[in-house]
Formats: sequence, structure tokens, C-alpha cells
Amino acid sequence: MRILVTNDDGIDSPGIAALVHAMRSVGEVMVVAPDRQQSAVGHALTVASPLRAVPFHRNGEVFGWAVNGTPADCVKLAVSALLDKRPDIIVSGINHGANTSVNAIYSGTVSAATEGTLMGIPSMAISLATFDHQADLSLAREVASEMAIKLISINLPSGTLLNVNVPAVARAEYKGLRVTRQGHSQWMDSYDRRTDPHGREYFWLIGKMVSIAAVEDADDLAVAAGYASVTPLHYELTNFSVIDDLKIKLQEQHQ
Amino acid sequence: MRILVTNDDGIDSPGIAALVHAMRSVGEVMVVAPDRQQSAVGHALTVASPLRAVPFHRNGEVFGWAVNGTPADCVKLAVSALLDKRPDIIVSGINHGANTSVNAIYSGTVSAATEGTLMGIPSMAISLATFDHQADLSLAREVASEMAIKLISINLPSGTLLNVNVPAVARAEYKGLRVTRQGHSQWMDSYDRRTDPHGREYFWLIGKMVSIAAVEDADDLAVAAGYASVTPLHYELTNFSVIDDLKIKLQEQHQ
Repeated sequence: MRILVTNDDGIDSPGIAALVHAMRSVGEVMVVAPDRQQSAVGHALTVASPLRAVPFHRNGEVFGWAVNGTPADCVKLAVSALLDKRPDIIVSGINHGANTSVNAIYSGTVSAATEGTLMGIPSMAISLATFDHQADLSLAREVASEMAIKLISINLPSGTLLNVNVPAVARAEYKGLRVTRQGHSQWMDSYDRRTDPHGREYFWLIGKMVSIAAVEDADDLAVAAGYASVTPLHYELTNFSVIDDLKIKLQEQHQ
Repeated sequence: MRILVTNDDGIDSPGIAALVHAMRSVGEVMVVAPDRQQSAVGHALTVASPLRAVPFHRNGEVFGWAVNGTPADCVKLAVSALLDKRPDIIVSGINHGANTSVNAIYSGTVSAATEGTLMGIPSMAISLATFDHQADLSLAREVASEMAIKLISINLPSGTLLNVNVPAVARAEYKGLRVTRQGHSQWMDSYDRRTDPHGREYFWLIGKMVSIAAVEDADDLAVAAGYASVTPLHYELTNFSVIDDLKIKLQEQHQ
């Protein structure tokens, strides 16, 4: 099995090193990842400037391609131009910080997997629910291997990816996989307003996640309870439940 | 009615000038927009660097705030820090280029409206289906006004925005509003591989939209037929149709 590995924390992050380590026990690994931190880039694409890909070394050997772009760029460029053969699966991560609930829409890690499914390749994103870059990645590595092996055989519909979030708990407290839905937590944001040494104002984003509504099988709640959440996501954004009402309100006068 | 206007083409684009012109006939307008072109940024947020907001002038008067960030940043910063009063609605655009089908996930224009709904404010994105920056914006202006007036009264559920796409046709060929779903067109991408004057390789993204499957009420087909498409979008990404199957395949052994 040929596995394309990418991420959004950058090709030099501990998370992608752990993921590559795990994937090497599953198949042949190719790495194409951003040359720097790209968190919260959402589904950004680089269209107005050219991309470059340069070999990145780790421990004296070639680890992969470092690209001056976003996670979605990396997947597109890898599959369309850099790789000799098409990957069988795409795995993005291991991200530091959960991509549960609303975070899925901001997440570069998830967007890489979305781009993979857009190209017709079974894809998953995997994140560990802590921002601590010294965190133990061994449980996340195990879950990554388990899910990568299953990714083809579970036969997801085209356009659907798996968003996997692993709790930051000791192996003994881990409760196993739980199939979930996107939770309803959200950021409560504010800006820290400061003045620079030249008297000009600037703003830092600060925020905390709060639960808006408890929904059954929510990914964030499963992770908080010690499960690794597995949420099938797709890029069908239409809210079908309001279509009929909107037709009555908007189309009448034009028909 | 207090209207926050933003976009992703940048505060100096003709599209946002046309939108502000239209919105001034509807209510009190505040502009907070990126200080430069931000197309295809997806739902990116600036978290690792500070934001600045500086007054932007047009025709000798203050037009709005220019922010060194993404469309989603602009909405968050405007509502959380810059504006004295909360806007009643948020309108993002007028984008040059349709944001139908898969483009909704790449679109900064749409992401600004998504961020608005996340903050509980009725929001819409509006785009004109041509990349020609000299294009006639008068029909898009009319549709923007019509939809902005209706945006509160149609009473969308929290978390749902309207993605409006206007055909690039003469007024006489315009067929009216059509409530639609996200279409199934997709980009067929490739990269143009070049060599710089120093012998190093670089890549330009090139692509064209192709229809993957014709679906009824698709936004892209409606626009091609001369309608302005109105698609209700939400950020619920879960593919519920595969949850039960995944539970059987993934949870069994752990229960």
C-alpha cells in the first residue's frame, strides 16, 4: 500500500515524524508537507504565486518534499506532479490539538484529507487532543496504524473522509474507537488589544472552546471521555432542511 | 439596519465598492476587509501573528478598515473589537468569479459569511460569475440589495448562510432568483512545471471546472441558465448516511 503523508504543523514537526514512523509498518510512505507551520489555514489554496518543492532531510536521509504552500496545495501538487505513482491512501497529521466540532472548518489537517477525497483517494486526518508538543504520541501512532489499515476496506463513499481525534490519555485509560458526528462546540473569541513600540495598535486573537449544545455521539465529548473519535466528513455544505421554505419565500414572485 | 460589508478580493476591489454602493440604499454600512487579495484562502484564520486595522480612503473619504488578515479574520475582528455596535447582517462580496459547487469550500467570500453565522449574525456571500474585473456589476448590485433586505425576514436557522451567485448576463437575460443546492462540479487540476532563471523548478496551479454529476437544482447549472442561485450552506460536515455502517465496521471489536 502506497501512503501519502502530509500535515499542517509543517514537515519538521514531531507529529508528522510519529505518523511516518507508524505508516512505515503499514506500507510504502511518501511525505509531501508544508515547509512551515500552517495551522488554521482552512482549505486555502495557493493560486496567485508559484509553488516550490525541495527535498527535506531528517536524520541524514531524505524524509520527503517540503512545499511552500498549504496542506491542500501539498496534496494537489503531490498527486498531480511530484509523485510517480498515485497513492492508495492519504493520511494527514498527527496534528497537535483536536480538530473536533467547528475546528474541522478551520483545520489545515482536515483540508488535506478533504483534498484527497476530491481526488478520489481514501483519506483521513488524525489529531491528538493536546497542544503540548512534548506529548506522548504513541497512542496516536497506534490509532493511526489501525485506521490506515482499515481505510480502504471500510469503503467510504467518494467525497467522504475520516476525521480521527485521539485523546491525550495514557494507554490504560484509552477506551477504543467511537464513531461520532461533528460536535457543537464553538470558539468564544476576543482580541487582546496592544500598542506597539511606535504607538500603533495591533490585535492578538484569543479564544476558548465552549459547548453550545450537547449532541449525541459528538466527537468532542467522545474524546473528552477517553475515546478516539472517528467522524465521517464530506464537503456537501447544503442545508437541505431549509430549501423548501426558501423556495416559498424567494422564488414565488419570479415564477 | 446596520450592515457589515467585507470580501476576499481586497478592500480596493471594484466588487466591494459596488456592494457598498448597493448596501447604502438598504442601511448603515461599515466596511472591514482584507488589505489585499485573499482569494482561495478558504476558512483561514490568523492565529500566529497579530492583526492590524488601518483606515482605508476612497474618493477622499474614509471607506472602511483595511485589515492584514483573511475574510474570516475581518469578520471576527470587526464584531469582537472594531465596531461600536453589532451589525444586524453581514454581506461578503461582490466576488469576481462564481462560488458555486466545490468552490464554496475554497472561498474566502463564503468563509466570511460562515464566520458571521458562527457569531449568530444573518450572513450572505455574493459573487458574480465572471473573472473579468471590468464586468458590469449593476445586476449583482440589484440582487445584493434585494437579498440583503430579505436576509433577516427569511429567518434562517442559526449556522446557515446564503451563498448567492449572479450570472454575468445582461439585465434582459436575467431570469430571477432560484433556490439551489451546492452543485457537483469540481476542478480538474494540473501544474505547469517551469524552471526559474537560476535553474530551480517551480509550479503554477492551473485547472478547469468540470461537471462530475448533474444534480437537480444545482447552483452552477442555475447560474449557467441565467438565474441568480441562492444556496443555503451550513458548517455541519458530518456525512450521517455512513455513520451506522461505520459503527458496525469500527466499533464492534471494542464493545
